[in-house]
Amino acid sequence: MSDGWSVVESPFRVEHARAYEGLFTLGSGYLHVRGSLEEHLSDAPQDLSYTRLPANVTSEKFPATKAKWGTYVAGIFGRHPLLNSEMINLPWFLGIVPRVDGQRLDLEQCTVEDYRRELRMDTATLVRTLRWRTASNKTVDVCFERFVSAVRPYLCVQRMTLTPGEAMQVDVEVGIDANVRTNGYDHFIHVETGRAGGSALACFVHTDAHDQVGIVTQATAPRIVWKHKPDGRTATLRAELDLPQGKTWTLEKRTAVQTTRDLDPWDLVTCLTQVQPMSFEELHAEHAAVWRSRWAACDVIIEGDPDSQRAMRTALFHLLRAHVPGDSRVAIDAKGYSGDAYWGRFFWDTEMYLLPFYLYTDPPRARTLAEFRVQSLDGARANARRYGYDGARYPWESDSQGNECCPNWQYADHEIHVTADVVYGLSHFARATGADEYLRGPAAEVVVETARYWLQRVDRRPGDEGLSLLAVMGPDEYVPISSNNSYTNRLASFALALAAEVGEAGGASPSERTAFAEASQQLDILRAADGELVLQCEEFERLAEPRFDELWKDRSKPFASQVSQERLYRSKCLKQADVLMLMTLFPDEFTDQQVRRAWDYYLPYTTHDSSLSPGAHAIVAVRLGRMGDAWRFWVAGRALDLDVTHGGAAEGIHIANAAAVWQMAVQGFAGMRTAMQSDVLTLRPRLPEAWTRLAFPIVWKGCPAYVDANHKGVTVANRGPEPLAVTVYGRTHEIPAGGQQRWEVPA
Amino acid sequence: MSDGWSVVESPFRVEHARAYEGLFTLGSGYLHVRGSLEEHLSDAPQDLSYTRLPANVTSEKFPATKAKWGTYVAGIFGRHPLLNSEMINLPWFLGIVPRVDGQRLDLEQCTVEDYRRELRMDTATLVRTLRWRTASNKTVDVCFERFVSAVRPYLCVQRMTLTPGEAMQVDVEVGIDANVRTNGYDHFIHVETGRAGGSALACFVHTDAHDQVGIVTQATAPRIVWKHKPDGRTATLRAELDLPQGKTWTLEKRTAVQTTRDLDPWDLVTCLTQVQPMSFEELHAEHAAVWRSRWAACDVIIEGDPDSQRAMRTALFHLLRAHVPGDSRVAIDAKGYSGDAYWGRFFWDTEMYLLPFYLYTDPPRARTLAEFRVQSLDGARANARRYGYDGARYPWESDSQGNECCPNWQYADHEIHVTADVVYGLSHFARATGADEYLRGPAAEVVVETARYWLQRVDRRPGDEGLSLLAVMGPDEYVPISSNNSYTNRLASFALALAAEVGEAGGASPSERTAFAEASQQLDILRAADGELVLQCEEFERLAEPRFDELWKDRSKPFASQVSQERLYRSKCLKQADVLMLMTLFPDEFTDQQVRRAWDYYLPYTTHDSSLSPGAHAIVAVRLGRMGDAWRFWVAGRALDLDVTHGGAAEGIHIANAAAVWQMAVQGFAGMRTAMQSDVLTLRPRLPEAWTRLAFPIVWKGCPAYVDANHKGVTVANRGPEPLAVTVYGRTHEIPAGGQQRWEVPA
Repeated sequence: MSDGWSVVESPFRVEHARAYEGLFTLGSGYLHVRGSLEEHLSDAPQDLSYTRLPANVTSEKFPATKAKWGTYVAGIFGRHPLLNSEMINLPWFLGIVPRVDGQRLDLEQCTVEDYRRELRMDTATLVRTLRWRTASNKTVDVCFERFVSAVRPYLCVQRMTLTPGEAMQVDVEVGIDANVRTNGYDHFIHVETGRAGGSALACFVHTDAHDQVGIVTQATAPRIVWKHKPDGRTATLRAELDLPQGKTWTLEKRTAVQTTRDLDPWDLVTCLTQVQPMSFEELHAEHAAVWRSRWAACDVIIEGDPDSQRAMRTALFHLLRAHVPGDSRVAIDAKGYSGDAYWGRFFWDTEMYLLPFYLYTDPPRARTLAEFRVQSLDGARANARRYGYDGARYPWESDSQGNECCPNWQYADHEIHVTADVVYGLSHFARATGADEYLRGPAAEVVVETARYWLQRVDRRPGDEGLSLLAVMGPDEYVPISSNNSYTNRLASFALALAAEVGEAGGASPSERTAFAEASQQLDILRAADGELVLQCEEFERLAEPRFDELWKDRSKPFASQVSQERLYRSKCLKQADVLMLMTLFPDEFTDQQVRRAWDYYLPYTTHDSSLSPGAHAIVAVRLGRMGDAWRFWVAGRALDLDVTHGGAAEGIHIANAAAVWQMAVQGFAGMRTAMQSDVLTLRPRLPEAWTRLAFPIVWKGCPAYVDANHKGVTVANRGPEPLAVTVYGRTHEIPAGGQQRWEVPA
Repeated sequence: MSDGWSVVESPFRVEHARAYEGLFTLGSGYLHVRGSLEEHLSDAPQDLSYTRLPANVTSEKFPATKAKWGTYVAGIFGRHPLLNSEMINLPWFLGIVPRVDGQRLDLEQCTVEDYRRELRMDTATLVRTLRWRTASNKTVDVCFERFVSAVRPYLCVQRMTLTPGEAMQVDVEVGIDANVRTNGYDHFIHVETGRAGGSALACFVHTDAHDQVGIVTQATAPRIVWKHKPDGRTATLRAELDLPQGKTWTLEKRTAVQTTRDLDPWDLVTCLTQVQPMSFEELHAEHAAVWRSRWAACDVIIEGDPDSQRAMRTALFHLLRAHVPGDSRVAIDAKGYSGDAYWGRFFWDTEMYLLPFYLYTDPPRARTLAEFRVQSLDGARANARRYGYDGARYPWESDSQGNECCPNWQYADHEIHVTADVVYGLSHFARATGADEYLRGPAAEVVVETARYWLQRVDRRPGDEGLSLLAVMGPDEYVPISSNNSYTNRLASFALALAAEVGEAGGASPSERTAFAEASQQLDILRAADGELVLQCEEFERLAEPRFDELWKDRSKPFASQVSQERLYRSKCLKQADVLMLMTLFPDEFTDQQVRRAWDYYLPYTTHDSSLSPGAHAIVAVRLGRMGDAWRFWVAGRALDLDVTHGGAAEGIHIANAAAVWQMAVQGFAGMRTAMQSDVLTLRPRLPEAWTRLAFPIVWKGCPAYVDANHKGVTVANRGPEPLAVTVYGRTHEIPAGGQQRWEVPA
């Protein structure tokens, strides 16, 4: 396996088990399973009931079980009495438990050598090998493999092989276990488990949102007679057999999952019988072929720095996994379907972080993300009504229907920039894919309805010339209620201007469009007295100094974990980029001097408590030529999921940061402007010192291209059938269809 | 019964049942029972379980059962999983259900004539009479009486008499019912019910806070044999008998309540056997005697306006009822022990609204309220620690231990003025009662510890000369997070100055005291550019116009019930007096011109959504000579509990407003300055047009006096053994011991 294509766990350390579970999540978009151990760990019950209260997520403590199962199907949400809609953690079906001479495999209690678990990202396969020295003083080589089929998204395929060093008595259990909770809550109002034929088990659950989910698993192995062990919410098959020395014994487990929300309902048993003639290798081959073609469309090559290469592929792997192809009823939740932590909900991350990667590598995937907001417009309308407004107001934390699920009023009520972010995302989709007509078609109603909301949400204060957006929370969530947050004002202004432009198609009257245009021009970006410093909001300069030196004792943990929320809310401490985030979106509206001024002013105040922080900062740092800073943020961002010693992906993949890893490389180090920022593909590569090559494919307004940069220059290949204009190092050129061209860094 | 001593319900209307339950609450301080009907209503189950979430109380909707039982013992709190500590609604023991010829008395379903229920406030007795025309076409006159003994605070005495118009078969049930909830939650982890001797029932509950509560009830009546009907959480005695025509039959029910928190534990059975030799009349007579002496010490006579007289006595009645004599482990909760609504917790109402009434009518009662904060200092210390501060920080919503119980962060985190209010209250106690040494004795530690908190809570912003209190919520809770709220700054400054003065006794070092003094001088009251308008906070002028005309459609309901919290929080709408509240506390620090300016500026923005609003406004209106406004606020305040058509006391008595009713009369219309505002008893009566006389007793620094005013002048009687200085209409005089003097209104 070439460098950078795999993530390896070796040896096993129980304190990192949760982190690897998240990091090793496999999935097909439709179905996702965390990387939990087939044989599980002892003392890690998965049915702990507890009350998770609405609270500040940054500083929340989770129950510290050693392991956390996670089985998710996109779109299967349940109703939590305190927390509103949340994605349900479904029954666990990965269980395969071998016993040798009566001893159960358990990584904490057994003697295990040569432990190695490898996520092979090229084929989205998880492989674990180990040598088990049993209590009966024998050895057996164990190998577990699993993948979730990219061809048959409902199908998970597993294999266990045992190669005994001595003859031994083996006993194996396979099962489905519905004794699970989601954030401590039981969403199953009815569970049925049972045997479904000789070697198959079935589990059906009815959720509290009236969905039904069926899981059928089939275990096949030579020389074995399964006995069914019914036990309430679990279904188990168990068999005993004697294994001769040296002969490898193989067990296969195939599981199909079906729900009442599936777009094309299939028959569970048919799912498995259809693939019965196919061997493990055949199923894996068709799966691997899909993954290889996915990689071809998006792989970013980083040479000279294996850690960066691996981190980049890890990010891309989860972005490819987490997107649900063809289903616009869901977007990508904050943890990319790999943990319960953010309740499986959809945030502004969708538009501002996730969308660009898909836009420039796989536009059809990007389209489902755009359409998710179009199809959830009715939820946004109802949400506006609840707040006393006409039009549409997108929820801060959305479920599939666009319902506001956030139980914390400060975000739900005040973090209204999401409504403009949605419109920015739709516009970005239209411009990047060349689907200009989209804004005058399906998206027009969203643009007009949200503009109607903005018209009612603005205030004109006595004595002011312009309009104000009061009591808003910007991207920096540590100033909870502020006036005229520059980010929010600019995005709302953008959305209003677009509504004035395309509003006719969305049903806006001429007078409405005039009103949109006028309001758009009256929402300002705030500047300090010096005219250079862009202010985050009216109040910012009058907040208290944060006194980090005194109060932030342990810099490895968020500032928010070490002071009260009350202090956060009165201090000049930023959770993440706010003005700088704005500057990444509208770079031409700010001079380098202004960006530098903002950087110098806000950075010392920024805690980076949010995983959304490194990405934006790295991009701005590259613009300013502060390559040391850019590298620092790149390193912070690439580590978020991989650094298991600091928790990593224990509660789920930081999927927006994964997309930001791509952005840092492409929009940062390669200096690519988005289609919102330039009509022409524009590049200005400036690589980190450690890198010798940065290369990636891109789709620009429908035209496929390949960018290949090093410290000396950049080559762009036009892989499309038409000429492609590119602006490199500030000069514009045209590359003929199928051609490629190289430019050296100007002296 | 002379005018103004009783509140009458006639006829019965089910839609007002809850309001009369609250209004007719009886109590001994220790034990309180809402005025629920002995025979109860059908379809009004009391064991509805529901989840009451942390939410904005002003706009919260309660389950609309027809009736709401309430049995409270001061200090018995339980643990709610979401809402923290709350006062427990204990088992209901008032039940007496008569049946005639098989028909159960039910006010909604039976034919009832001449219904009249009267709260006789002079003797704290509830009497209900009615004529019941039964389904068997007979008539029976029914009378129910009840009182909670002021002599034996654990004892509730009830009597029912039946006078049949014809011979009839009667069947009677008496019982104790533990099928109750508190805000939808069951706090009983164990309930035992049973018969305790021939005519007695017992009920013991263990609460989730590990208190035990015992209730024993004894029912006696001639010619009756009780049968016990055990039924889980209820205990019932039932008997049948034949009543001859015209002969009155009497049933008595006596109930004793005991808890593990009682200061002097008594034996439940002894409680009842001790009083067995005493007749109903004897028990009532000793009870009534105590109430008459209480009234003598505080009754406010208003002549010329019976509605005002009745409202005044209703307020005083509940103030006398709700205070727990001699027990400083509790204060008076926000609903005066007459409803579940504010969870039985203690707010700033204690110091700023309730305390003055007790200070000037019954100083020993006032002492327990002051001492409540002294004894809960450890809770306030722990609360400071939780927020990352030294010293003591009093909770916004306190239980008996000073724990913060408020589950809504905006109040708990930011409404910090309570910590200064507590110190103001202690100082007020010391000055009003002449117990100056109190501040250098028991209260000194509170003063110093809270000052230590303030020293750490202030910020010095770059460029500012003074100190700031940032991110605070003032009394106006509709500006959730503001900077330098004038009320909070002034109160904190007051508290710091006091700590500098008396700090030595509280263990403050000389350098600490210097720091207290310096900080005190650096917290300013904000003024607008004109120098006259006192600003509520730095942000106020930049908030949005509230647009009441457009948005506040139904003025009979709170503004907050008609707009979203988000709009409240960004608009210039006040929930209640804020700057004006400050001006009632420190009247000499503001010129009439400044007060007028504040009045004119803030009043149009004030919603009076809080029941704390009318009192402060009426007092300021009298100062400004705006007697029409003063009258309007008086009428609004006096109606709050009595106006059953608008809900009245359905969820409990507005006890702070009850105290404000006294304040409006004494501090408003009689123009009495508090001891915080004047060393000499100072009066400047200005009566509403409708009143012909306003007279009340007062205790000034230990000296009893009597004030008797009309439109022409005022007479002050010195009932103490020393000469008493008084300032009347701006001139100071001395009244000899036992003497009295009259002054006419100056021309």
